[in-house]
Amino acid sequence: MQTHVGGTVCVVAGGLGFIGSNLVRRLVDGGAHVRVIDALVPTHGGDKRNLDGVDADVVVAGIGDPVAAEVVADAQLIFNLAGQVSHTASMIDPVTDLTLNALDHAQFLETVRRVNPAARIVHASTRQVYGRPERLPVDENTPVSPVDVNGVAKLAGEQLHLVYCRAYSMATTSLRLSNVYGPRQRLSRDDLGFLPVWFRKVLRGETLEIFGDGSQRRDCLHVDDVLDALLASTADAAVGRMYNVGHCRDHSLAEIAQMMVAVSGSASEIRFVEWPADHERIDIGSFKMDSECIVAELGWKARVPLSEGIRDTVTFYGDHPWYQSST
Amino acid sequence: MQTHVGGTVCVVAGGLGFIGSNLVRRLVDGGAHVRVIDALVPTHGGDKRNLDGVDADVVVAGIGDPVAAEVVADAQLIFNLAGQVSHTASMIDPVTDLTLNALDHAQFLETVRRVNPAARIVHASTRQVYGRPERLPVDENTPVSPVDVNGVAKLAGEQLHLVYCRAYSMATTSLRLSNVYGPRQRLSRDDLGFLPVWFRKVLRGETLEIFGDGSQRRDCLHVDDVLDALLASTADAAVGRMYNVGHCRDHSLAEIAQMMVAVSGSASEIRFVEWPADHERIDIGSFKMDSECIVAELGWKARVPLSEGIRDTVTFYGDHPWYQSST
Repeated sequence: MQTHVGGTVCVVAGGLGFIGSNLVRRLVDGGAHVRVIDALVPTHGGDKRNLDGVDADVVVAGIGDPVAAEVVADAQLIFNLAGQVSHTASMIDPVTDLTLNALDHAQFLETVRRVNPAARIVHASTRQVYGRPERLPVDENTPVSPVDVNGVAKLAGEQLHLVYCRAYSMATTSLRLSNVYGPRQRLSRDDLGFLPVWFRKVLRGETLEIFGDGSQRRDCLHVDDVLDALLASTADAAVGRMYNVGHCRDHSLAEIAQMMVAVSGSASEIRFVEWPADHERIDIGSFKMDSECIVAELGWKARVPLSEGIRDTVTFYGDHPWYQSST
Repeated sequence: MQTHVGGTVCVVAGGLGFIGSNLVRRLVDGGAHVRVIDALVPTHGGDKRNLDGVDADVVVAGIGDPVAAEVVADAQLIFNLAGQVSHTASMIDPVTDLTLNALDHAQFLETVRRVNPAARIVHASTRQVYGRPERLPVDENTPVSPVDVNGVAKLAGEQLHLVYCRAYSMATTSLRLSNVYGPRQRLSRDDLGFLPVWFRKVLRGETLEIFGDGSQRRDCLHVDDVLDALLASTADAAVGRMYNVGHCRDHSLAEIAQMMVAVSGSASEIRFVEWPADHERIDIGSFKMDSECIVAELGWKARVPLSEGIRDTVTFYGDHPWYQSST
């Protein structure tokens, strides 16, 4: 997917995190001048080492901080990937999740409106806004019904971006991302999604634990496909739009676990365990995204098959062992 | 509509405001012990005089304040009507709107979960969450698409209530209310909806200004009908549900203005004026609620015809002239 960023000034909010740091690398490789603003909240996915050797300006601050005005002032493209992603953490501290995923974004949008209202803004939302779907696959007309505070807060953050387009003609887009995996994801925590936990266990030869019977399904998206979607969303046709971004192929959790073990040649065993209460109360059942809208309108399509993505990811973490133990 | 509240302890959050104070009166008349918690934010609709002569305990505090724990500790019924209603104010200060309509509600729900998780909670949401509808009437399966920060924040507040039901089995319900009018609404401000502004002008014989050509339609709901809906929503069948609550009959803005002038016998003229920018940018076009779901499930139905509701309202404000000038 070709999107020319050479010579542009790009801001990546949350650019020290998982998706953000991969995007920064892609933008720098494409010839962009990249500025990162990232709060480096200790329990989140951000780590300065994610940008080791990369020529980007990094400001360690929240997007709601006044310094954000300097960061965005002359940017053409702003990728807003800042936020908190942990579903369980959002239930332990709802106010912090709402602050990081909604309030700070309102502050950020006000800042951009004040200093650089013509900037192109692409925001990362999540399939979590749909909650437990009544039928699959889930398209953009499906009523939202989040099952946890994280889904509520991310929905608010997404809708704020769309409000700023409608009310002020700012060029915003928001993408509801499926389960994303790949290089530079924090593996060492248990509350940032099941995929990084499983990668850590596979790499260490530890037992993979599947909650329930493993029949639940997910469509998993390699981060390279997400980068393509983020860049495709800078097109004029995407202004004011919200798109689902998922993989066209879904798998059961048991299949995903088996594939991880097989592809990596790990000694890990797979065990089916009872749901822990803090996960079960916010479980969404099976999920599969219908991403036909962004396919039709922007020509984006997930390209990385799961087995290939797992291989790439395992290789990366094998070459960068610190990810397994970073705190 | 019969709902027995005699002898129960009821909390009305926002109970000094428009809908809240009418509800407090209804509950007290029904024999309930009523506690009010209301922040009395100066620019909102709350006023201590709304409860003049009413036997209710009043705590002046925000619902996010620690004192809320004492207020709700032994309540059977909690009506959560606290919040900010001004659409234009939400665009001037998004962070405050998100705080009052979402964050404080997260804090409040955490408080109730901690001290009184078995309480029945009914929350007031708004049709504003739908934004500018693609087709009418609008039922609950219509995708949300708020046009202003107030709609975003109210949606978050509503969804938080539903999350606390799904995750913690708390008995919550949220109602998306249409345009509500009636006694005890603050008339003196211009940013709390068009209906109170028009009532003020009709009472003073001033010119009613309609933005645009007056063909936009609204379904207007007398506050007595809202009280019926709030009480009906304490039924077991309503737990975990979100309902639209609107009038089955809609009218054009021109018709509503003409009806107000005719019913009140006012000398007011009606003038069509250009949209002010701060209203036009968040305008939603015509709106009509489909409330069939609450009709079918709870047996609630709007009963007050608009002409009768206007007559009642004009009579009330004629008898209570301070509403026209209170700041």
